[in-house]
Amino acid sequence: MSAPNKDFSVAIVGGGLVGALNAVYFAARGWNVTVFELREDIRTLKQAGGRSINLALSKRGISALDGADAGAGLFETLIPMSGRMIHIGGKQSSQNYGYFGEAINSVDRKLVNEHLLNKLQKMPNVTIKFLHELLSIDYEKKILNFKKSDGTVYKAQADLIIGADGSYSRVRRELMRVTRMNFSQEYIEHGYVELNMPPSEKGEYQMDPGHLHIWPRQTFMMIALPNIDKSFTMTLFMPWKNFDAIKTPQDLLGFFEDKFADSIPLIGRELLVKDYFKNPKGSLVSIKCKPYHYKSSCLIIGDAAHAMVPFYGQGMNCGFEDCLVLDEILTKHIGKPGTASSTKPTAEALGKAFEEYSATRNADAEAMCDLAMYNYVEMRSSVTKLSYKLKKSFEGFLHRLFPTSVIPLYTMVSFSRIPYSKALSISKKRGQWYDFFGRVAVYGTVVTALGVGAAVGLRNGGLKYVHGFMCRK
Amino acid sequence: MSAPNKDFSVAIVGGGLVGALNAVYFAARGWNVTVFELREDIRTLKQAGGRSINLALSKRGISALDGADAGAGLFETLIPMSGRMIHIGGKQSSQNYGYFGEAINSVDRKLVNEHLLNKLQKMPNVTIKFLHELLSIDYEKKILNFKKSDGTVYKAQADLIIGADGSYSRVRRELMRVTRMNFSQEYIEHGYVELNMPPSEKGEYQMDPGHLHIWPRQTFMMIALPNIDKSFTMTLFMPWKNFDAIKTPQDLLGFFEDKFADSIPLIGRELLVKDYFKNPKGSLVSIKCKPYHYKSSCLIIGDAAHAMVPFYGQGMNCGFEDCLVLDEILTKHIGKPGTASSTKPTAEALGKAFEEYSATRNADAEAMCDLAMYNYVEMRSSVTKLSYKLKKSFEGFLHRLFPTSVIPLYTMVSFSRIPYSKALSISKKRGQWYDFFGRVAVYGTVVTALGVGAAVGLRNGGLKYVHGFMCRK
Repeated sequence: MSAPNKDFSVAIVGGGLVGALNAVYFAARGWNVTVFELREDIRTLKQAGGRSINLALSKRGISALDGADAGAGLFETLIPMSGRMIHIGGKQSSQNYGYFGEAINSVDRKLVNEHLLNKLQKMPNVTIKFLHELLSIDYEKKILNFKKSDGTVYKAQADLIIGADGSYSRVRRELMRVTRMNFSQEYIEHGYVELNMPPSEKGEYQMDPGHLHIWPRQTFMMIALPNIDKSFTMTLFMPWKNFDAIKTPQDLLGFFEDKFADSIPLIGRELLVKDYFKNPKGSLVSIKCKPYHYKSSCLIIGDAAHAMVPFYGQGMNCGFEDCLVLDEILTKHIGKPGTASSTKPTAEALGKAFEEYSATRNADAEAMCDLAMYNYVEMRSSVTKLSYKLKKSFEGFLHRLFPTSVIPLYTMVSFSRIPYSKALSISKKRGQWYDFFGRVAVYGTVVTALGVGAAVGLRNGGLKYVHGFMCRK
Repeated sequence: MSAPNKDFSVAIVGGGLVGALNAVYFAARGWNVTVFELREDIRTLKQAGGRSINLALSKRGISALDGADAGAGLFETLIPMSGRMIHIGGKQSSQNYGYFGEAINSVDRKLVNEHLLNKLQKMPNVTIKFLHELLSIDYEKKILNFKKSDGTVYKAQADLIIGADGSYSRVRRELMRVTRMNFSQEYIEHGYVELNMPPSEKGEYQMDPGHLHIWPRQTFMMIALPNIDKSFTMTLFMPWKNFDAIKTPQDLLGFFEDKFADSIPLIGRELLVKDYFKNPKGSLVSIKCKPYHYKSSCLIIGDAAHAMVPFYGQGMNCGFEDCLVLDEILTKHIGKPGTASSTKPTAEALGKAFEEYSATRNADAEAMCDLAMYNYVEMRSSVTKLSYKLKKSFEGFLHRLFPTSVIPLYTMVSFSRIPYSKALSISKKRGQWYDFFGRVAVYGTVVTALGVGAAVGLRNGGLKYVHGFMCRK
């Protein structure tokens, strides 16, 4: 059992993206931080298993990295994608994400994680312990029980416990034993598999790396994001029943020839078959819960608090922003890093900070979970429709005219730090206005047509009839 | 480790109400049934802790007990309650539940459980093991690991595992590891505490035992159900913040004098204070999940599958009906008890039966969870409103005229076996008709009034004006 520290001690369960970034923030407050990670050190692995290979980093994630002064050395590896490239019928058409050249950025998940772990390792008040599986938490005594890789139990004591241990969080499970936590998990009917499009023989990208490529096919879709080695990582999302129907390489090639013909020569038949059958098929879950904390003892962040489907590219960004928002709220309640009240915070002040975080962040995270769910329909289907393109053009026109007052939803989510819940409600309200104007336009047309019709009718006989009726006497 | 049995073996986790009744059904199929219960034998306890003392048994529960031939000896203890007795301003007014003398029945939870355990103990192919805490399940090997009271691990093997282990089901938790289970749990903002109203000095009921008594107070309420010892068990439901505000006996008595004055002399000040501060305060949770099964290996029933708030008195009834519905579906897929196909069912037939059960029962159980949530508003608030009473009278009038075609919602839920989901959808549709007729009545009145007004107006000058205009030339 680690000796209780005179300093303020924090146990962060989970050394993935969010846990590692949060450790940087907490270490900057002078706290004695220990990160416990279930898996082995990702830096010793060739490729992390069972997780998506690349991610889209946008405004919120960048702001959070900046806030922890953790961007340098990482930002240089980003590949900006300024829009979607829609693949239909062998043709490609581009749709910009922003209206002023904004881009989201393809980045390697493993590289981000390694970058943050490297940064942590240089901080004197941070310890990282790999291969520590959380078994249970005693919240009253603030003791965490871990199983080490040799099977022995390791007990750790901490003033504060952070759960950054992902969708299937053990910290959350333990939290549910001591709080009345509302919780929901919803699997969508779609799974995914990752494929690879290698560089060309000349070592170049085989498609434009400045776009996120989408093959929208209504009920399913494939996407591709560029990697720095000039390859693309492609993800095929489709209902489980479609996966079940593909049993042989012939099934697979037939399916691709029918649906994604233009991608076959770029991927190569052999690699396509190999990757499809070798790579794990992942499920997609949306998780919401409330509250995120227990007194001043524990707080969950990232996927542990709000797992979302990946269709808005906000999972990492939202998790990183959690760390930034938490830091902002902590500063409000216990003061800036470096002050005495921050270095050794009182339980009362921490409790209040967590209460505020839990309440405000929950609304935002759940809004983002919903937006991510809606965006699946947009990506695989709406983007192909004229009404969608017209609405987007109209909104873009207004946005260019009034850049700060009419901001498209995608821009609010990906290129601003407007709280997710506010972005969602603005967008909903705007949708009602569009509907209203649309209806006014239709009604106006109908009423005008009727008016003209009536006038013509009246002139051609109606007046005579009325006159005859009225003037009979 | 228990030796694999040549017979078809079933492990039922949970020896509460639903687990015990289901064991009776399964034993009747000749299966080798072992019931594992976490707690000690309820028959050795004076009072089971932390659970409601009495429950309302109605049609579905009675049918399920009848279906297992498990009613005799229990039905004699039932206390029929034909309606609600509403306590407002010190006065009582009765509202019947049914329109043909139907009643729900107050029954002692402990007595029901003991009755079923006694019945099980007489069946040769049933074993009951108390103080067995489920640790984990290996679904592929069909092995259950239990911790016994002496701390040792007990391994059991079974062809089929039934989870009847309540709201915080371990079987469900293990099921979530092998299935993509959608799951939600929602705590309501209200807690409850049980109180006791003893018999009078003469040993009689102090209120009418033929009613379920309610003190509706809009945001909270108290209810009372009669017990066979002539006492009433009262349950006070209110927001947690109200519980938090009552810190002293003076706070409690002040609150009761203000809100439930008529109950104080019947309970007695001393007992009220004693019970309120001694008895545990319980939370109320609504749990939904899907699917309920894993292949032919495992199925969850009762609260483990669908915990509901207690405001429709359907928790036990729905759980009991689970057993009956499951038996009906099993008979459809594997044959009647006694047939060879039922005694030793194939995995394929069982799997299909569970798939059907999971799909149909889920819709019904979730409908019931929703109905239970709606009924909280009805019980604590709607029952006091004129519009509610008018609607109820009107519906009762129609029901008396057309007893089989217009059935009030409460009657469908409590006095019929119409599937819950159907009852809910019929009731929703009917609500739309009521709204429609209401609107037609309002519109009719308005249009008539406008018509009369226009006719009068036209007669008093309008015609002259039109005539002047038309005949000017």
